[in-house]
Amino acid sequence: MSTHRLLLAVPIVLAGSLASPATPDLQAERAELFRQDKAWAQAAAAKDLEKTVSVWADDARVLPPGQPAVVGKEAIRRYVSEAFAVPGFSIQWETTDFVVSASGDMAYGVGTNQVTVNGPDGTPLTERGRGVTVWRKGPGGAWKCVIDTWNAEPSAPVPK
Amino acid sequence: MSTHRLLLAVPIVLAGSLASPATPDLQAERAELFRQDKAWAQAAAAKDLEKTVSVWADDARVLPPGQPAVVGKEAIRRYVSEAFAVPGFSIQWETTDFVVSASGDMAYGVGTNQVTVNGPDGTPLTERGRGVTVWRKGPGGAWKCVIDTWNAEPSAPVPK
Repeated sequence: MSTHRLLLAVPIVLAGSLASPATPDLQAERAELFRQDKAWAQAAAAKDLEKTVSVWADDARVLPPGQPAVVGKEAIRRYVSEAFAVPGFSIQWETTDFVVSASGDMAYGVGTNQVTVNGPDGTPLTERGRGVTVWRKGPGGAWKCVIDTWNAEPSAPVPK
Repeated sequence: MSTHRLLLAVPIVLAGSLASPATPDLQAERAELFRQDKAWAQAAAAKDLEKTVSVWADDARVLPPGQPAVVGKEAIRRYVSEAFAVPGFSIQWETTDFVVSASGDMAYGVGTNQVTVNGPDGTPLTERGRGVTVWRKGPGGAWKCVIDTWNAEPSAPVPK
């Protein structure tokens, strides 16, 4: 009898261990991405360099329009630090949509952003864009941004 | 005895059915994405409208720099059809990197592209960019592009 119980237990344990990575709570993961992205945007708006940089993965790639790819945490730290130092710099973004893979280890976000800097005569110039981010869940369970790219929205129609 | 066999069979079947979505062949999926992307680029280079359009998902979003988002297959068909009709239009791209989620249902690609059109005086003008694509595996098992965005590479240094 105890032998039969043992035989039954083996496949049940297998089922549990194999099935668990396939059934993450995707709604909860999505909510966590929204929460984290909002905190990230707040950190960037406050020019908190370390908190801002912490959200990218060590091997993340930032692809800014018209500028070289920024690859890896240290390069990203320099890039963000220089951006924060630009006169009149401010940034806002909002991710409107997150989609999480069935395994809960990859996700992407789509949203809008706007960056303001002082123009040559000191008046603020604002550029609006659309951003796409790709996220990977790290071994510690935290989401990290691995791809971060954006481009310009269409120019505003010229007033007649 | 037959009852015990039946009891044993249930968890084994469960293990198989629950585990299978969690263990796709990620190397094979990655190779399939490279193969499909190459065929896609060839179709676009040949201006094969239907073959080119077939790779986007029905709800795909194309985000071209400085232009409105192009959302959904019909809007994408018009966008591509108009691009193919631009005098001197040609396009090339190469995805250099694909990463597939553990569940094999989501992937992203990063690569380079170049688009040539005739300039105002009829001489070809080429723009080089970096692209990011996000892919979803459809119910039929085929990969479809759901997000397609790119931006300009840095301008070439001005010759001295």
